[in-house]
Amino acid sequence: MRARDLITDFPRVTPDTPVVEAARLLATHDLPGLIVVDEHGLPVSILPGTQVLRMAVPSYCLDDPALAGVIDEEHADAFLRTLAGQPVRDALPARPRELPVTDPDATVLEIAALMARTHSPLVAVVGDGRLLGAVTLKTLLNRALPQ
Amino acid sequence: MRARDLITDFPRVTPDTPVVEAARLLATHDLPGLIVVDEHGLPVSILPGTQVLRMAVPSYCLDDPALAGVIDEEHADAFLRTLAGQPVRDALPARPRELPVTDPDATVLEIAALMARTHSPLVAVVGDGRLLGAVTLKTLLNRALPQ
Repeated sequence: MRARDLITDFPRVTPDTPVVEAARLLATHDLPGLIVVDEHGLPVSILPGTQVLRMAVPSYCLDDPALAGVIDEEHADAFLRTLAGQPVRDALPARPRELPVTDPDATVLEIAALMARTHSPLVAVVGDGRLLGAVTLKTLLNRALPQ
Repeated sequence: MRARDLITDFPRVTPDTPVVEAARLLATHDLPGLIVVDEHGLPVSILPGTQVLRMAVPSYCLDDPALAGVIDEEHADAFLRTLAGQPVRDALPARPRELPVTDPDATVLEIAALMARTHSPLVAVVGDGRLLGAVTLKTLLNRALPQ
């Protein structure tokens, strides 16, 4: 069993996609993350869902979540509105990290090692210079767990 | 909107649950993680799915995923069998981390700050000395995103 046997189609966003739209995509399709592609359709980032929230949360709340408690309920409910107009570009990590990207020949163990190492439940598969799709933790477990 | 309004029921495992069973639960229900509870039913850990894989992947593959490529396909397919008999206890992080656990009064912003800070798409809600359920990133986005 190789990556090519485990690929599923996966929504793509670009650095210009509004974060609000990306967040809706995550929530509607219950995705473990998003693949951000460049102008050639190749992955530039795999964005975990929690990274989308990170953009909307004031930095003092990230340092100490208890401080979020000083914001009243009405304003707390509306915090995601601060994302309006912001592009995915602004949610990408400042420092480049090891991307969970592999090739169609990768074995189940290679994919698992990459997921475990990068803490990503989502691995993009690139072959012949293009993004073929993704392998999710769910698919990997469903196919590789002993029956 | 408070945590109590966003709670969904969520499967629980204990440190004694076999990891294979926990992994099946993750895959079957497409969960973002698992809540590990102690003998009083209170969360001792929130286990991300990739942490389950980490147990089964040989450590040299974690250091360098390319080394996983030296294992042939047949053995790679079977790597999750190494989990047989291992309990969830062995998959828990050695060093205790900040747990994504909150109370029923937490606002949407408090929950989001906790998710962003702990990189967890899953927050356990504890009230009156018991685990009431969890708030997932999916539920939070579905309810808090501007329409």
